[in-house]
Amino acid sequence: MNWINVDKANNTPDGFYFAGISAGLKSSKKKDLALIVAPENSICSGFFTQSCVRASCVDLCERRISQSNGLIRAVLINSGHANACTGEFGLKDSLKASKEVAGLLGINADQVLICSTGVIGVKIPMANLLPNLSLLVDRLSENKIVDAAEAILTTDLVTKSVLIETSIEGRLIRIAGIAKGSGMIYPNMATMLAFLTCDVGIDKDIWDSMIHNAVKSTFNAISVDGDSSTNDSFIAFNSGKKLDNRYFPILQEGINIVCQKLAKSIARDGEGANCLLEVKVAGALNDEEALKVARMITNSSLVKTAIHGCDPNWGRIIAAAGNSGVNFELQDIDLFIGKYQILSNGSLLNFNKKELSAYMRLKMEGDYLGEDTIQISLNLNNGTGEGRSWGCDLSKKYVEINSEYTT
Amino acid sequence: MNWINVDKANNTPDGFYFAGISAGLKSSKKKDLALIVAPENSICSGFFTQSCVRASCVDLCERRISQSNGLIRAVLINSGHANACTGEFGLKDSLKASKEVAGLLGINADQVLICSTGVIGVKIPMANLLPNLSLLVDRLSENKIVDAAEAILTTDLVTKSVLIETSIEGRLIRIAGIAKGSGMIYPNMATMLAFLTCDVGIDKDIWDSMIHNAVKSTFNAISVDGDSSTNDSFIAFNSGKKLDNRYFPILQEGINIVCQKLAKSIARDGEGANCLLEVKVAGALNDEEALKVARMITNSSLVKTAIHGCDPNWGRIIAAAGNSGVNFELQDIDLFIGKYQILSNGSLLNFNKKELSAYMRLKMEGDYLGEDTIQISLNLNNGTGEGRSWGCDLSKKYVEINSEYTT
Repeated sequence: MNWINVDKANNTPDGFYFAGISAGLKSSKKKDLALIVAPENSICSGFFTQSCVRASCVDLCERRISQSNGLIRAVLINSGHANACTGEFGLKDSLKASKEVAGLLGINADQVLICSTGVIGVKIPMANLLPNLSLLVDRLSENKIVDAAEAILTTDLVTKSVLIETSIEGRLIRIAGIAKGSGMIYPNMATMLAFLTCDVGIDKDIWDSMIHNAVKSTFNAISVDGDSSTNDSFIAFNSGKKLDNRYFPILQEGINIVCQKLAKSIARDGEGANCLLEVKVAGALNDEEALKVARMITNSSLVKTAIHGCDPNWGRIIAAAGNSGVNFELQDIDLFIGKYQILSNGSLLNFNKKELSAYMRLKMEGDYLGEDTIQISLNLNNGTGEGRSWGCDLSKKYVEINSEYTT
Repeated sequence: MNWINVDKANNTPDGFYFAGISAGLKSSKKKDLALIVAPENSICSGFFTQSCVRASCVDLCERRISQSNGLIRAVLINSGHANACTGEFGLKDSLKASKEVAGLLGINADQVLICSTGVIGVKIPMANLLPNLSLLVDRLSENKIVDAAEAILTTDLVTKSVLIETSIEGRLIRIAGIAKGSGMIYPNMATMLAFLTCDVGIDKDIWDSMIHNAVKSTFNAISVDGDSSTNDSFIAFNSGKKLDNRYFPILQEGINIVCQKLAKSIARDGEGANCLLEVKVAGALNDEEALKVARMITNSSLVKTAIHGCDPNWGRIIAAAGNSGVNFELQDIDLFIGKYQILSNGSLLNFNKKELSAYMRLKMEGDYLGEDTIQISLNLNNGTGEGRSWGCDLSKKYVEINSEYTT
């Protein structure tokens, strides 16, 4: 790996500014308004929810990125209110807020994006938001990415930020990402917002394809509950001096690392979750089919409740795989949970159920993103396709959170 | 409606015999072995799981129905053990058990089906099953359909049987159905077994198409947890004097009624469920799209937890509909929960949230299949397609049952 983690907030990519404040949008005193400002001539790509019920801010983002050919300068993010299904207010308030921010930053309103996350059907409390915009702009700093990461959270338990760096031709290169997401999480952009910045200049079409490559196997490979949202957005900026094409694979690697770490922290922070579930599928006809099988397993309520019960209920794993729409032969497959092999060429091995269950319990009680990953490996022995998906266990806490979360 | 319910167990279709006993297959003393015997020259149709991981008894059923052109005489059903993913034992034990039953009934083994349901990866305890087959055959009676209905249950809380009758040209016609299913329940044949008998003779191809019609909008329209199983089977017999073609619509109506009632009771008896959730979608481009939207809603964990919390969280309903892959415009739709209208042409109405929540709580505390149905109605106002799907709320009890159910 060419990249190293940098955990300090003041190592953000060159030229980008961040802020996060409490603007009184949420009833708690938590931060709820964030701003990311990119240098002039930055290039922006955006990937958005594929739901046909989208918040109008999502449409606005997509239109502005397209019309400016990616020359976006800022993103305003408010949490607590999705501003989706809010009728005429949806677009009106998004336009108003972005115009105000543009005025304060001295840029064109068409170069400002706005992302909202929270309860569907609830407007942005504009009376609280507008008077706080100048404070937000005042707080902009290269060192405030963690504030921004905090301000975009909703039911998340932890902030999600990744900073990595490498050196190319003696030049320090950095990529930073932040994300939010905890419930309504399923492939094809879950209820998540994610923002990435990178301080290498890359042309729009190449940047689009790099970001698309990363999204496929990361944000689109996670599941908390199989539900997708009205507001999902991933927005990625690059800015700075260009590098020779031959370094693109290193940059792609860096982007993948950041996206995968963010995606995994979203899955791990799934509502009520106690562990990260990682499903690796190999031996499929192609990568797409492998991912399909992996996603079916991380999305199975029965697999997720079995994991929660530290029960190596392999029958449910195989049943989920069998329902993915991908064809394979039971007598070909090998199945592992952790290092314990359960099936060899479809035959049940005499594995130590007690020991495996104890191993699962250990992971379930492990630290956050430390020793808390339960890995399921399935080899279909039918080709060279590989895919990975991430999810979490399904607990009573998930039900509690979601039966009490107010409309 | 041409049909009336008959709740007495001794009103089963003419010529069919049923039995259900405890053969010591389960560790509890509950009934676990059932037998249905059809008259000579009965016609049988079968619909089976679409999973590529199927129990070998499912393959055996399908092959025997096909090879005999539907001339099946008996079905043996054992509960507690799925006999799926059990390697060579799967087929061997199925063949052995059906051969023994055939011997006792004096029929050809190729005319006997066998269905298993229970834990995947666990063999049928043949040492208990075989010595009990003669007792099972001794118990055969026209009046024992309820015994059979009890003997096929696994985590079900209630037995599921429907008996209806009508009179055509002065002749009494009866259709009876029994089913099991509670978890691993999702469209395309869930973890369910269902058996139907009808005492009107109908040719194989017409019978196949009648049963197929009924399955589409009933068993394939329910969801408990989005998981499907290795053993799902629906087997339907007819036998008796034929009727004129013009009465076929009445027969189709009767078959639909029985299948719909059984499907609804499976959804209502979903693991940990407190209510039946009925989602009606109208105004779609066609019936297929309507059903797709309806199924997406009944299958959403977030809708199901909101229902459980008696929370009219309409945003989640709309978000689920938006992710169905069916295109519609938010500004066209009308949404109701019960009699309460929430959206009119995509605009939020000022509905009484407290009253609606109280209505939901009343349903949640209602009696089994009585006053316990929460209805969601969605009109896409985009065509004439209609569809209905049934599901249930998602409770902590579901998690409890499934994290403690042993492999």
